[in-house]
Amino acid sequence: MTHEVVDNVRAMRWHREALEMLDQRELPAREVWVRCTTCAEVASAITSMVVRGAPAIGVCAAYGAVLSARVRQRDDRGGWRAGFDADLDALARARPTAVNLVWAVERMRRVARAADDAAAPGAILDAAHALHRDDVDGNRRMGAYGAALLGARAPVLTHCNTGSLATGGYGTALGVIRSAWAAGKVERVLADETRPWLQGARLTAWELVRDGIPVDLLADGAAAWAMRRAGVGWVIVGADRVAANGDVANKIGTYALAVAARHHGVRFMVAAPTSTIDPDCPDGDAIPIELRAEAEVLTAGGRRIAAEGARAWNPVFDVTPAALVDALVTERGVIERPGPEAIAAHLGRA
Amino acid sequence: MTHEVVDNVRAMRWHREALEMLDQRELPAREVWVRCTTCAEVASAITSMVVRGAPAIGVCAAYGAVLSARVRQRDDRGGWRAGFDADLDALARARPTAVNLVWAVERMRRVARAADDAAAPGAILDAAHALHRDDVDGNRRMGAYGAALLGARAPVLTHCNTGSLATGGYGTALGVIRSAWAAGKVERVLADETRPWLQGARLTAWELVRDGIPVDLLADGAAAWAMRRAGVGWVIVGADRVAANGDVANKIGTYALAVAARHHGVRFMVAAPTSTIDPDCPDGDAIPIELRAEAEVLTAGGRRIAAEGARAWNPVFDVTPAALVDALVTERGVIERPGPEAIAAHLGRA
Repeated sequence: MTHEVVDNVRAMRWHREALEMLDQRELPAREVWVRCTTCAEVASAITSMVVRGAPAIGVCAAYGAVLSARVRQRDDRGGWRAGFDADLDALARARPTAVNLVWAVERMRRVARAADDAAAPGAILDAAHALHRDDVDGNRRMGAYGAALLGARAPVLTHCNTGSLATGGYGTALGVIRSAWAAGKVERVLADETRPWLQGARLTAWELVRDGIPVDLLADGAAAWAMRRAGVGWVIVGADRVAANGDVANKIGTYALAVAARHHGVRFMVAAPTSTIDPDCPDGDAIPIELRAEAEVLTAGGRRIAAEGARAWNPVFDVTPAALVDALVTERGVIERPGPEAIAAHLGRA
Repeated sequence: MTHEVVDNVRAMRWHREALEMLDQRELPAREVWVRCTTCAEVASAITSMVVRGAPAIGVCAAYGAVLSARVRQRDDRGGWRAGFDADLDALARARPTAVNLVWAVERMRRVARAADDAAAPGAILDAAHALHRDDVDGNRRMGAYGAALLGARAPVLTHCNTGSLATGGYGTALGVIRSAWAAGKVERVLADETRPWLQGARLTAWELVRDGIPVDLLADGAAAWAMRRAGVGWVIVGADRVAANGDVANKIGTYALAVAARHHGVRFMVAAPTSTIDPDCPDGDAIPIELRAEAEVLTAGGRRIAAEGARAWNPVFDVTPAALVDALVTERGVIERPGPEAIAAHLGRA
């Protein structure tokens, strides 16, 4: 049985000369839009996880550059470019692991440099809109490429949130799942709740329920057992950065899934736009892994759960070696068993 | 550097003719003792997880039998045994996966049958005290056997709570860790928070902080990454039931750890009293796996976290095949690479 393609959610919108973001810290309890009118506000919203997900961060950063150009030109019409560059430098540092952030910032910087002062704000806005549109279009293509890899109708397992909320729209891994659901290849989605931030429970379930795709949440520790008992066809995840050799940094817990998938002969797909591939990063060891506050682990649902005096280790990403990845899917196509040569060829750098 | 052996916590106490249990649902925020004066209250406390942990459930069930004998004799001095047997049948069904519960109940039933009416309540109380004392003594021996397996000082990783709170006292896997800490072999404990019930964050961290053993909590999804990055020496877990072939039912997430440990060449130890071994259960497929309420996954810290409309899959145990277990440690010694013959010999049934 096939289904209509559904995609009703957006994480950000350019509205009345400002960037508005759906506050993902408040979901699913409340739908609150945070309005940013300066680049610093956008950077702060990225750091504090109003918006998260590597491609979504990239899109928001592009709009942040628009706000910077406008504010800096208003404050100092002749010397605005120094302030603009400083804003973009700060923006690029808002979070360390995702490479799409730096990629989007540098793309906006090049657009600004190529434009004269008067044209720059408009050119940057056009480029931000284009980047946003290209992300959604690319995700739809990625969805089709990824869905084509799936076989008979089966449950698929995913981690974190890689949907419309994590991207410009449609999603990466969740875009593949949307497309595969539409093609009748997904029996249901098994979604890791994804501690500590609970992106799976709070965001992925919210998107899928809204879009009418059946979803069962599970504790992250139950995923290997699901592979053994629940007939999982594919594990499908996103990425925050893919190194030149195919190693994949993604939400903590991804590596455990890849190890378990290999143990069970379940295939493992990473869906990410080419902007997530960092050709300057040779391998996973070179990817900076963000450690976030211990409080994220010591609390749950906003309440302290751990004993007083307990400490926590909270790396929020891990690295899955390329050898555990069966397919890397981008908006340009599929790389089976990704390695340095195949990735360079895929990027047109071979 | 060696340390003093510390063991300050108890989950239950026989006090003023009643069984009192430290309410584990309230830890670590509050230390509340629940007082049970009937066997039905004990069964209900086990079902509702006032007390949890296979050996602790067994100890509490033994005291529950004492309460049954007293109440039934008071109500019907001549015909008390029918009510007693019915109470014990209900008690044995309070939770399905742990076998220690049935083991303790049947032990008390045999004591009652061997005693005349007048002597029975006292004999059952003596047997319950003995079972409790034997559990603690056995755990201390198990701790020494398990600790002897550890090599150079390293972090150890554990799951759920297997400490004094899960047993009559001292703990199984956490007892091994206590003994190994005392012997200077544990650099620190990495404790999975253990969703959905968060036994690691709420109970293991509480015990270890009280006893001065350094503990870092981590999200369950981070454990495989810890094996790759943090130099984990051993994974040490408990068990709710061990089949005759060595397959191990334990808290959901244990199987994922065993798969990851094997992938990384990290050794995997199961510490459990012989009362946890079920010689009548041929293998893991024959162990009933308790599915608990979806709400445990859909909430965290007492708050709804998942989107309205989302469902959850909540098996609270999984089965680790014997082939992934490097050592099964009981109060009688160590079984390396457990299998049916070695286990039968260990139980004196060979």
